[in-house]
Amino acid sequence: MEQNEINYQVIINEIYNTVKTQENIGEITTYIPELAKIDPEKFGVYLTTIDKDGYGVGDWQTKFSIQSISKVLSLSAAYKLIGDQIWDRVGVEPSGNPFNSLVQLETDDGIPRNPLINAGAMVICDMLVNHLENPIDDFLRFIRKIANNPAIDYSKSIVESEKSVGYRNVALCNFIKSFDNIDNHPEKVLNFYFHMCSLEMNCQELTNTFMFLVNGGLDESKEQVLSVSQAKRINAIMQTCGFYDESGEFSFKVGLPGKSGVGGGILALHPGKYSIAVWSPKLNHKGNSYRGMKFLEHFTTRTKLSIF
Amino acid sequence: MEQNEINYQVIINEIYNTVKTQENIGEITTYIPELAKIDPEKFGVYLTTIDKDGYGVGDWQTKFSIQSISKVLSLSAAYKLIGDQIWDRVGVEPSGNPFNSLVQLETDDGIPRNPLINAGAMVICDMLVNHLENPIDDFLRFIRKIANNPAIDYSKSIVESEKSVGYRNVALCNFIKSFDNIDNHPEKVLNFYFHMCSLEMNCQELTNTFMFLVNGGLDESKEQVLSVSQAKRINAIMQTCGFYDESGEFSFKVGLPGKSGVGGGILALHPGKYSIAVWSPKLNHKGNSYRGMKFLEHFTTRTKLSIF
Amino acid sequence: MEQNEINYQVIINEIYNTVKTQENIGEITTYIPELAKIDPEKFGVYLTTIDKDGYGVGDWQTKFSIQSISKVLSLSAAYKLIGDQIWDRVGVEPSGNPFNSLVQLETDDGIPRNPLINAGAMVICDMLVNHLENPIDDFLRFIRKIANNPAIDYSKSIVESEKSVGYRNVALCNFIKSFDNIDNHPEKVLNFYFHMCSLEMNCQELTNTFMFLVNGGLDESKEQVLSVSQAKRINAIMQTCGFYDESGEFSFKVGLPGKSGVGGGILALHPGKYSIAVWSPKLNHKGNSYRGMKFLEHFTTRTKLSIF
Amino acid sequence: MEQNEINYQVIINEIYNTVKTQENIGEITTYIPELAKIDPEKFGVYLTTIDKDGYGVGDWQTKFSIQSISKVLSLSAAYKLIGDQIWDRVGVEPSGNPFNSLVQLETDDGIPRNPLINAGAMVICDMLVNHLENPIDDFLRFIRKIANNPAIDYSKSIVESEKSVGYRNVALCNFIKSFDNIDNHPEKVLNFYFHMCSLEMNCQELTNTFMFLVNGGLDESKEQVLSVSQAKRINAIMQTCGFYDESGEFSFKVGLPGKSGVGGGILALHPGKYSIAVWSPKLNHKGNSYRGMKFLEHFTTRTKLSIF
Repeated sequence: MEQNEINYQVIINEIYNTVKTQENIGEITTYIPELAKIDPEKFGVYLTTIDKDGYGVGDWQTKFSIQSISKVLSLSAAYKLIGDQIWDRVGVEPSGNPFNSLVQLETDDGIPRNPLINAGAMVICDMLVNHLENPIDDFLRFIRKIANNPAIDYSKSIVESEKSVGYRNVALCNFIKSFDNIDNHPEKVLNFYFHMCSLEMNCQELTNTFMFLVNGGLDESKEQVLSVSQAKRINAIMQTCGFYDESGEFSFKVGLPGKSGVGGGILALHPGKYSIAVWSPKLNHKGNSYRGMKFLEHFTTRTKLSIF
Repeated sequence: MEQNEINYQVIINEIYNTVKTQENIGEITTYIPELAKIDPEKFGVYLTTIDKDGYGVGDWQTKFSIQSISKVLSLSAAYKLIGDQIWDRVGVEPSGNPFNSLVQLETDDGIPRNPLINAGAMVICDMLVNHLENPIDDFLRFIRKIANNPAIDYSKSIVESEKSVGYRNVALCNFIKSFDNIDNHPEKVLNFYFHMCSLEMNCQELTNTFMFLVNGGLDESKEQVLSVSQAKRINAIMQTCGFYDESGEFSFKVGLPGKSGVGGGILALHPGKYSIAVWSPKLNHKGNSYRGMKFLEHFTTRTKLSIF
Repeated sequence: MEQNEINYQVIINEIYNTVKTQENIGEITTYIPELAKIDPEKFGVYLTTIDKDGYGVGDWQTKFSIQSISKVLSLSAAYKLIGDQIWDRVGVEPSGNPFNSLVQLETDDGIPRNPLINAGAMVICDMLVNHLENPIDDFLRFIRKIANNPAIDYSKSIVESEKSVGYRNVALCNFIKSFDNIDNHPEKVLNFYFHMCSLEMNCQELTNTFMFLVNGGLDESKEQVLSVSQAKRINAIMQTCGFYDESGEFSFKVGLPGKSGVGGGILALHPGKYSIAVWSPKLNHKGNSYRGMKFLEHFTTRTKLSIF
Repeated sequence: MEQNEINYQVIINEIYNTVKTQENIGEITTYIPELAKIDPEKFGVYLTTIDKDGYGVGDWQTKFSIQSISKVLSLSAAYKLIGDQIWDRVGVEPSGNPFNSLVQLETDDGIPRNPLINAGAMVICDMLVNHLENPIDDFLRFIRKIANNPAIDYSKSIVESEKSVGYRNVALCNFIKSFDNIDNHPEKVLNFYFHMCSLEMNCQELTNTFMFLVNGGLDESKEQVLSVSQAKRINAIMQTCGFYDESGEFSFKVGLPGKSGVGGGILALHPGKYSIAVWSPKLNHKGNSYRGMKFLEHFTTRTKLSIF
């Protein structure tokens, strides 16, 4: 099946209806009080092609907390600003462990395995705090530009909510600091980290924000935000590390680079073809959206299009 | 750059000459006595396109021990014979650990993380011992058929050499057996496993043998050995798990599914386009061919073609 | 309360009756088929003082498989034969892990944490195989001499039973061999190891066999089998390592050096005062006799005598 | 050799002179800036018998930072105040890991292995913060009472110094809090913890402070601060857990319950006989005083008195 013959709207509607009628398994995130308030039956999908065609179904216009999906964006910002030096302080290997594990840091001397686990994202945040004058404002400006969308913003209530319970993240950041792999005061890094995680988008906005990774580094404001090679490398990291210790499963069943967040969002993309966002708050026991995983598995099976 | 414009012969010659003149770092495998005898300066490359065009340089006609590359072939044989039931006994997640680690098995109750680490390959071998009348002969027949090449064979001297020193593998197999995830007597499974690892091919033969994964499951004898979806899934596993705890690095720098062996071989492939084999016996500290990694990094950078 | 005022017979009778009327919790060992046949309600106690007074209650005359308690005896034999060189190949630290764990060996390069976990006992067995002409016969002769009891023997049926299911131990021995910390062929070491574990004694015999550790190294045949300092050191190792990952608990609640076996036996001793053996086959989830632990906790609480 | 025949002064003088003339190996603690200023050649010893006889040599009158030795004192205070409920939140098993490891907490769901590693001491501190009105003042009052010495005090400069670099401890406390095993705000617990660690004593004061553990719970102000059984149990924990992953070695070579601190102090005691303090700031690679270990090994070898 060639891409230009695919009727995306029909396909996403069908899969959406199939998945929606099946049991909605899993638990919504409760450890962040604000996220615990979300309606667990929310379910939205949006796909944007490289040619700017868009197809949505369900709650695709509702904003949600993109959480860890933002780690790909801070990574991109740091890669653009600092280049390959970032790899001196963070690896590119899948961790084989849950997202907030501290175990490997102890054997790896404080070098996180990759930038998409919490520890790695904090090291990236520390780099951005080093390089940006006003990290929180400047990073938001970066996101708005690559998405060509001034409406994207942080959620102050999510920031406060995360701060009130973020003991594990405080532990992680101080632990890395004890290995000298955080330059700034942990509090400053964590403040930026919690802001980054609090970014809110709807499914459509999310697909647009990530089009630079579909389009060889060219963002929605027509700027080459990353080189072709840099964009490919970030896609490679999403492929191997985007779903914590379920990354292999996602690669196996879906076959696309992608990233999930505990807010229930998943962003996946086919380089040169499209980006797709699915949002459904109930998470499986690995912390990834249950319906999001299900939808995307159906989607690449049905379209017979994956990078493999 | 479009594929049909690429002059593969020129490119592989140039990269070959570049890499050959640089320092050849690393160590050849010495723990298997037979492998310790190999000339460390051997260096060969072969690329076969989906259209059957072939391009070689250096020692591409010399046979070598493909070792762990064979794990993809036993996995394919088991997937064909048994189907998705194989995933009840082995996972699809990157391990984040060296190839012969026993640590994760203890926390994972004897279910190996993936079929491309030693533990997982042994479980696959156990399944084949269950399903094949004469596992050693029948598996060789399978390889010869998918490669359409009756000249492929085991190396009896390598089998004997591995048996003489294979304490770690004996440990692994008995350890998994203690968790009831090996059905047959460990000795029988190990005998098959050591034969599998002893397969010998030259670079050209290796690329041909793997064409079924380039070609959506269609092998060199024109048979649909795996379904399109099964072939994609095996490629996905190679992408996330093919290079032990350097899988992320390979994905990041090369951007292709691939598999390495301690004999110094690496097989990589671009679905729908080509397979490529590189052989150079010196291994980096992660156990992957130093020049093989280097060559392929140059190759996908130069051709600007990767799956990302 | 001074020792010479203690009426041991009264005390052990009372505690025996108390414990016997309480619920008998836990599971008997089932992974060794021969041990699975034992009557789970067997319960015996014997205490021998340094002055050769003996006090028994219950099934103290019934022989049972002493299993891992024998590791203290092989350690003593090796310490006597080889001296402090044995500590080059095995440590003296508690492991904090279950008795048959392979995890630490991987980080510790094949040096077992202590001689009372399976891995460490195998290294000790390997040393004895190096130093004894007929290890199985010579070791039995050593035991009979220190116990001054020619009736002590191996159980052939237990040896065969363990061999038939000993995959975890085969794994352990081959794993250590892969780190070059086993000199002999694993099969030879394991054969000796399984014999050692199969030693059978009744409670009285067990207390007599261990009197050399109560008596500053002087055994029942009046020979100084170990120096005072060596005997103290073996007691120290029992104190910190004798009960796997329940060693701290035993030290905390009972306060004596001791060693348990999966046959349901526990041997404890008060240097300069007495040795005591308790046998009851049901094991708690750490693999130590449920009633044995209970009895000894009552015993040192009641007598107010512990080494602390 | 009977105790009453031992001339302690002669013995400690001789051993002191022997050890002092040998090479002083190891490194002083540098991660706490204040401790890095200590003269590495300081070396003092003091022994107090149960009959109040005292024997000192070298710098026994110089106060030093007792650091982790204080963990035994906070444990005692909590045991006295709360009783056996404390064991619901902290274990009694040796950890087999360095003093500040976070690894086990992840597998043990935030229950520290024992109260003498940093994690366990923090949980004990949290309990004291719950039970004491003014934890810092009240705990100091407790210490002064059991030592019958109003001159004992915290070092404010050490408290500030630890706070300035205590990232690992901040990590630990927040990590345990994330498992809900810390009730109070981590900052409050850490403030108390850093005060506790900053206690300063000289060798003589240290031996007096610990006499309640020599004397079956009876402290220097003639009060039964702990029951006999409680005192025994704390001694048992010191025996198995007092020297981090060198606890087995200390038990093996010295054979007494004891506790070390990164300030270079070691306190050891023989129940019913004496307590002894050694201070020498250079630490071996396990974090225990090099000369302290050496001195005590000589001491129990020479006196032939150990609990075993």
